[in-house]
Amino acid sequence: MNAEDAIAEAAAKYSNWGRWGAGDVLGTVNFIGPGERAAAARLVRRGVSFSLAQPFDMNGPQRGLRRRTNPVHTMLDTGLDAVHGDQGFPHGFGGADDVIAMPLQCSTQWDGLGHIFDHGRAWNGRPADRVVTSEGDQVTGIEHLAAPVAGRGVLLDVGRAIGGGELPDGFAITEEHLAATAGAHGVEIRRGDLVCVRTGRFARAKREGWGEYAGGPAPGLSFWSAGWLHRTEIAAIATDTWGFEVRPNEFDGAFQPLHQVVIPHLGLLVGEMWDLEALAADCAGDGVHEFFLTAAPLPVTGAVGSPVNPLAIK
Amino acid sequence: MNAEDAIAEAAAKYSNWGRWGAGDVLGTVNFIGPGERAAAARLVRRGVSFSLAQPFDMNGPQRGLRRRTNPVHTMLDTGLDAVHGDQGFPHGFGGADDVIAMPLQCSTQWDGLGHIFDHGRAWNGRPADRVVTSEGDQVTGIEHLAAPVAGRGVLLDVGRAIGGGELPDGFAITEEHLAATAGAHGVEIRRGDLVCVRTGRFARAKREGWGEYAGGPAPGLSFWSAGWLHRTEIAAIATDTWGFEVRPNEFDGAFQPLHQVVIPHLGLLVGEMWDLEALAADCAGDGVHEFFLTAAPLPVTGAVGSPVNPLAIK
Amino acid sequence: MNAEDAIAEAAAKYSNWGRWGAGDVLGTVNFIGPGERAAAARLVRRGVSFSLAQPFDMNGPQRGLRRRTNPVHTMLDTGLDAVHGDQGFPHGFGGADDVIAMPLQCSTQWDGLGHIFDHGRAWNGRPADRVVTSEGDQVTGIEHLAAPVAGRGVLLDVGRAIGGGELPDGFAITEEHLAATAGAHGVEIRRGDLVCVRTGRFARAKREGWGEYAGGPAPGLSFWSAGWLHRTEIAAIATDTWGFEVRPNEFDGAFQPLHQVVIPHLGLLVGEMWDLEALAADCAGDGVHEFFLTAAPLPVTGAVGSPVNPLAIK
Amino acid sequence: MNAEDAIAEAAAKYSNWGRWGAGDVLGTVNFIGPGERAAAARLVRRGVSFSLAQPFDMNGPQRGLRRRTNPVHTMLDTGLDAVHGDQGFPHGFGGADDVIAMPLQCSTQWDGLGHIFDHGRAWNGRPADRVVTSEGDQVTGIEHLAAPVAGRGVLLDVGRAIGGGELPDGFAITEEHLAATAGAHGVEIRRGDLVCVRTGRFARAKREGWGEYAGGPAPGLSFWSAGWLHRTEIAAIATDTWGFEVRPNEFDGAFQPLHQVVIPHLGLLVGEMWDLEALAADCAGDGVHEFFLTAAPLPVTGAVGSPVNPLAIK
Repeated sequence: MNAEDAIAEAAAKYSNWGRWGAGDVLGTVNFIGPGERAAAARLVRRGVSFSLAQPFDMNGPQRGLRRRTNPVHTMLDTGLDAVHGDQGFPHGFGGADDVIAMPLQCSTQWDGLGHIFDHGRAWNGRPADRVVTSEGDQVTGIEHLAAPVAGRGVLLDVGRAIGGGELPDGFAITEEHLAATAGAHGVEIRRGDLVCVRTGRFARAKREGWGEYAGGPAPGLSFWSAGWLHRTEIAAIATDTWGFEVRPNEFDGAFQPLHQVVIPHLGLLVGEMWDLEALAADCAGDGVHEFFLTAAPLPVTGAVGSPVNPLAIK
Repeated sequence: MNAEDAIAEAAAKYSNWGRWGAGDVLGTVNFIGPGERAAAARLVRRGVSFSLAQPFDMNGPQRGLRRRTNPVHTMLDTGLDAVHGDQGFPHGFGGADDVIAMPLQCSTQWDGLGHIFDHGRAWNGRPADRVVTSEGDQVTGIEHLAAPVAGRGVLLDVGRAIGGGELPDGFAITEEHLAATAGAHGVEIRRGDLVCVRTGRFARAKREGWGEYAGGPAPGLSFWSAGWLHRTEIAAIATDTWGFEVRPNEFDGAFQPLHQVVIPHLGLLVGEMWDLEALAADCAGDGVHEFFLTAAPLPVTGAVGSPVNPLAIK
Repeated sequence: MNAEDAIAEAAAKYSNWGRWGAGDVLGTVNFIGPGERAAAARLVRRGVSFSLAQPFDMNGPQRGLRRRTNPVHTMLDTGLDAVHGDQGFPHGFGGADDVIAMPLQCSTQWDGLGHIFDHGRAWNGRPADRVVTSEGDQVTGIEHLAAPVAGRGVLLDVGRAIGGGELPDGFAITEEHLAATAGAHGVEIRRGDLVCVRTGRFARAKREGWGEYAGGPAPGLSFWSAGWLHRTEIAAIATDTWGFEVRPNEFDGAFQPLHQVVIPHLGLLVGEMWDLEALAADCAGDGVHEFFLTAAPLPVTGAVGSPVNPLAIK
Repeated sequence: MNAEDAIAEAAAKYSNWGRWGAGDVLGTVNFIGPGERAAAARLVRRGVSFSLAQPFDMNGPQRGLRRRTNPVHTMLDTGLDAVHGDQGFPHGFGGADDVIAMPLQCSTQWDGLGHIFDHGRAWNGRPADRVVTSEGDQVTGIEHLAAPVAGRGVLLDVGRAIGGGELPDGFAITEEHLAATAGAHGVEIRRGDLVCVRTGRFARAKREGWGEYAGGPAPGLSFWSAGWLHRTEIAAIATDTWGFEVRPNEFDGAFQPLHQVVIPHLGLLVGEMWDLEALAADCAGDGVHEFFLTAAPLPVTGAVGSPVNPLAIK
């Protein structure tokens, strides 16, 4: 089957359009109800907190693909100026201040629901050109996800469980791999879960340098995992790779076909470029792969994505 | 007493320098131990989540003071381009992408430990010019706070408890006001707490327009609350105002004297421009003013502050 | 007549569509031929050079209208860092470096041909959506004007000639005012000229503060000067105001109707926010109102406008 | 001789400190007097204009060295939005607008006098930390060069004259090469000249890709040309390379030693990354290597460098 037909078939089978009403702006985040969230908080036992964000700086992986750069962080005022007496403040007061310029998806991020379209259709069947204009996403801007993204996190360390540590580039993670990993961890996936899939790709980048991390070959979710992503009713999926799905993609000449199904049709929240290393080591150590996860996007009005610093708390 | 003497006296009385060793980079966040965090998670009962972030966009309060602007969010690609067929992707794939340029402290934020100095000294007594250069904060960059800022949040709604809803500009919140508010709420402040003080100033800005919200007169913490901020061993304090402390400041010709004590000397984490409205309304409704709070800064390497979307979960 | 009809009538009467072929990307800049340029250079007699640019910095007039901010200029490295020994260079080398973020039309500027459309049509009759996408102006980007904008400059100091120094806000400069001013100066307008019209509005802003300089009331060209702008075959017109044409506009509820005629239909190069003060004082002194003018835009690929530092050389 | 000693010796021999008074902010641009400028304008014969700027866009050579990125140009509004009817303007008005974020020295540029220091000293002997702080260059900001940079341009096409088209990387251009090239061109260098040295490095980059254009090996001025740069009393020198001087530098472990002499000690205006290709082809064709050159920097207040679009007019 070619990509276009496969996408159309998957879109038809797994569509959530209308599931939460015509005005929905949350997609699968609707699966996290208060009950799920309260239960998830009870997973905190030791009180240990893990940041799942990569560093945001010029030493990042971006190389200009889709005009994405690494963050440029510059100082408006520094300790040098303060000590030098240049700041003009009274009573020995001194200060430092700074600015940043960056693509919203340059590092650890959420894809917003307005990030990807299928044949001109955005999430819930809306015309893409009525949703995202030069003023930003007028309907499903990331600000709508400001509050709800807190719930049960589950780590599926496919790198460790299947790959002996790290999966090779081009490794397509199927439903079977996901199930086997969950089985090995002794954890089950539930409705409303925020699922973190570790491939080991980021561990390799830390060890060997970024190389083609941003857009190059990588392990990742198989296109054929779309059914699992739909059936499990998870709220979100996040990986330690640039693009969540396997690269090269599984169809000749294709570009991110799984995105084209899961964002506009499932309304699935997708996270990319997460750092799952410390969390994964801890989970491997204590055998507990579930935790409380909060990953609130920065509510940039009309944004189609957001940098995020997710916290996994065990 | 003049500002300089008052600052010196408070600095001497309330200094935490050396308390967590010479190499400390966390300040009062050290007060949040695993035990405090695990206990805080047990405060989640209903599973309701509140975002405490203001919107990040051009319609913000900044007017250029200290060269701070509002966020500029622009699109690299839109739904219009996708529908128009300009994107060059295969199989009907379309996408939107965006960038942002903003001061790190333009909206809801944490002040980093490298944000304020006293007579050329940064947190823990370090020379400011050895800490924050044009390359950023080399020692106490906000990235060090990526993981730990999750714990017990307490709302002290001084606006409601003392002001009948909102405090007037220039109202200095003293230890007595804080104690009275806590008493009225039936909540006690504990070591490691993340204390949110609502003045009502942001409610007024939402109703009447920003006006002088950024840098103008405002209610806020009294300089004389420094002892309380120290003695209670709280991990952080955050307000719904631009600058956390009362403005005009309580000394003639002064500029943010309480900052000059609490950041470099206490190592206190200070949050500003938080939106406490929805949370406060809920707390007023159910009488419960404690909750689980996660407020992980974006780990921008070397930053002296960070935008943040804090989540309060009850 | 209402604005829409007046625009349609003027567009029909003064259209230059097709005048320089279907592929034209220069508009009225075509009027500057080598002969005009060489003759203009011979206007240089004393060898004195005037910059016609306003300062580019945070203290500019922008207030957010159309998401335009003032330039944000930040340092990557400074003399403080160099003296402090933080830069890591050998043999006593030190350096400073800087970055800027700004709208391309925040200060002294040229409007590109892709800046304004009339009923979805861009310069030369092209569909606007085929010209300017999220990737920028694909056809008439400002880079096409990188070389040719050098020729005969003429100052029409309407402020001095008609207004006794400065024109009041809302003053509509008509063909008669332009002719009277040229007559008073003893200068004639020729094909290919780069005409600088001084209203005095910027002088007032320098004296009294920016106020509503960006977008508020101002003197400027009357809508009814469109015929003159067409008939004279000038290459460009520039003013010392934010928006070139009179404001409030001369039709109820209108927005920049003269732009809508002269940019898409005449292909006229329009300059705004120029500082004509020093030049005008010199011209008033020596009575010579013609000069060599170079005003090369920064060739930002696909830009619809450009900052510029025009030089008038007498 | 090691770099440090060679720099000290050259600095002592070629210093212009005090030559134009203690308050000077122009350096060698002082050599362009009205007489030089008027004479230069008389070099315009054919009326042909050449832009010497490279394109400013994401496809530039920067790779992050010294945190320099390529320009990021994004749209605030487009023709797509206009056609789609999203802009809210009356009477069929439509518009496009854009913003840019870039290092001031990312592409064709002038180095300001505050760009380079020698042992903590800036131009004219000033302490670097009194000149360039986080607020920018407080003394010699590029805005001081807004008006005067217009005069006699001379092209020395060393690539053609010595290299048969292009010089190889690491080729150090000495005084002898410069003299031989001028001789071959039949042109003499005069006081106040703006000298453009073509190596052919940019031609190669256009043909073969940027590669290591930004900071890698390149032909360029020899350290030992400092005497010539001083003695000729030229106002400025510009090359088609990233860094003006030969790379690798001529001393082991050195970094841009000629910069360290000519900017702080001579006060020489240095241009980099110019596109001399079209001009050079024309000069090779007609044998005329002198022209009128205007190269007005963008007057960004306090900037230590500026993008520029130089115009050579013959």
